[in-house]
Amino acid sequence: MEQQPPAPPGSAPADAPLVDVSRLQQVVAQFARERDWERFHSPKNLAMALAAEAGELLELFQWLAEDESRRVAQEPGTAREVRDEIADVLLYLVRLAGVLQIDLDEAVRHKLAANAARYPVALARGNAVKYSRR
Amino acid sequence: MEQQPPAPPGSAPADAPLVDVSRLQQVVAQFARERDWERFHSPKNLAMALAAEAGELLELFQWLAEDESRRVAQEPGTAREVRDEIADVLLYLVRLAGVLQIDLDEAVRHKLAANAARYPVALARGNAVKYSRR
Amino acid sequence: MEQQPPAPPGSAPADAPLVDVSRLQQVVAQFARERDWERFHSPKNLAMALAAEAGELLELFQWLAEDESRRVAQEPGTAREVRDEIADVLLYLVRLAGVLQIDLDEAVRHKLAANAARYPVALARGNAVKYSRR
Amino acid sequence: MEQQPPAPPGSAPADAPLVDVSRLQQVVAQFARERDWERFHSPKNLAMALAAEAGELLELFQWLAEDESRRVAQEPGTAREVRDEIADVLLYLVRLAGVLQIDLDEAVRHKLAANAARYPVALARGNAVKYSRR
Repeated sequence: MEQQPPAPPGSAPADAPLVDVSRLQQVVAQFARERDWERFHSPKNLAMALAAEAGELLELFQWLAEDESRRVAQEPGTAREVRDEIADVLLYLVRLAGVLQIDLDEAVRHKLAANAARYPVALARGNAVKYSRR
Repeated sequence: MEQQPPAPPGSAPADAPLVDVSRLQQVVAQFARERDWERFHSPKNLAMALAAEAGELLELFQWLAEDESRRVAQEPGTAREVRDEIADVLLYLVRLAGVLQIDLDEAVRHKLAANAARYPVALARGNAVKYSRR
Repeated sequence: MEQQPPAPPGSAPADAPLVDVSRLQQVVAQFARERDWERFHSPKNLAMALAAEAGELLELFQWLAEDESRRVAQEPGTAREVRDEIADVLLYLVRLAGVLQIDLDEAVRHKLAANAARYPVALARGNAVKYSRR
Repeated sequence: MEQQPPAPPGSAPADAPLVDVSRLQQVVAQFARERDWERFHSPKNLAMALAAEAGELLELFQWLAEDESRRVAQEPGTAREVRDEIADVLLYLVRLAGVLQIDLDEAVRHKLAANAARYPVALARGNAVKYSRR
């Protein structure tokens, strides 16, 4: 039986999680509990709040050309706003996953596998299958 | 000078990250690179894709009563759909943060501090300040 | 040959438009032209702006119970906000249709016919086909 | 006192509505009533459905360059999809306004007046005040 080659130094083990938000999940759960907000945090309401924050993120980019959007992190004012809106989306996403007891690491692994099957490298490179609806 | 009390066994060090998505970030970057999708992944476009996925998540909840939405994880069919849509939002969020070189751990810590200042526990409990716009 | 019965007084002729926003379309086109905003008003950008406004509308409802949301028009402060956000969505929608030269009356008639075929009255009443994903 | 000049032939009277969706409003109300969907059509749920449709509209544009998005009406397949998604947004918007008894003509007039005050022509032309967040 062949031996497994040693992992390169500093590399993660093969089964290390892709996503670890367990500590954030605890923090946001406590944040809600302390404020008596649990009754507002139904999955329905949290999905709305997440989408509303995604809308605020959109707003930061809506009038920018694509190239301008690539440089947004270099404008101190906008960079903070972008980081804040991305954080808001992530906070509601982690809260929603917590309320529904969804394992985010499992969820992204399942979706990545589905995406890999749907967009094989050869096909995707060849004709940009996903992007050419035309 | 008093000594710091020892952390309880199994607890994370005070500076352990709240969010660690570094491995997922590598995976989604490689996924895009292999398919020659980097040119499509401007922050503007990724913000749109994230918001579109948030819309698909909304769709799963839009006709459910709040209580029904709390039980959604127990319905096998819907549960998979919900996990998939949440995963899609997270994948685009992590990709967007990667493209903009945003440190998500820093971003959520900054936002949590701002939220804590904005919604003090005493006030939030007392009158649900956030939720009563009326 | 039988005579067509006279339309009841005050009723619209059968081919009267369901939607007439022609005057609003002129007003928003002029508004953009006067401000030199036409270069920003690509369909892509307008779709983003519309979705961002839909997000602001969501925000007004996200923590309300469904019954509270039915009474929102009776709270003077919120009622104005709701009207404003709905107006914002409509303004961008009409602008987008104008830029793309889409006939909104044709578009809704086509979609209504598709919806009527997809959700026949008998079936929809019987088992709430659209709404029971459960 | 000077007489009002006669309106040019074919022009609308000054108080003609900018928006007339009264017939569509009746049609969508009847559509819901016939299917016993009124109980699902709370303002909260309709705002979600509207935002979900706005997300589907986004999806059609998310990977297109701005210039490509301007030509989308010339691609028969995409053109139909765009018209359908715009119609879906409009149908939910008109339904929401109906349920809340909002006068859309009043709402857009109020918002247009606010926008005109906020973005004076001279200022907007001079420095694109709305669009330069940078």
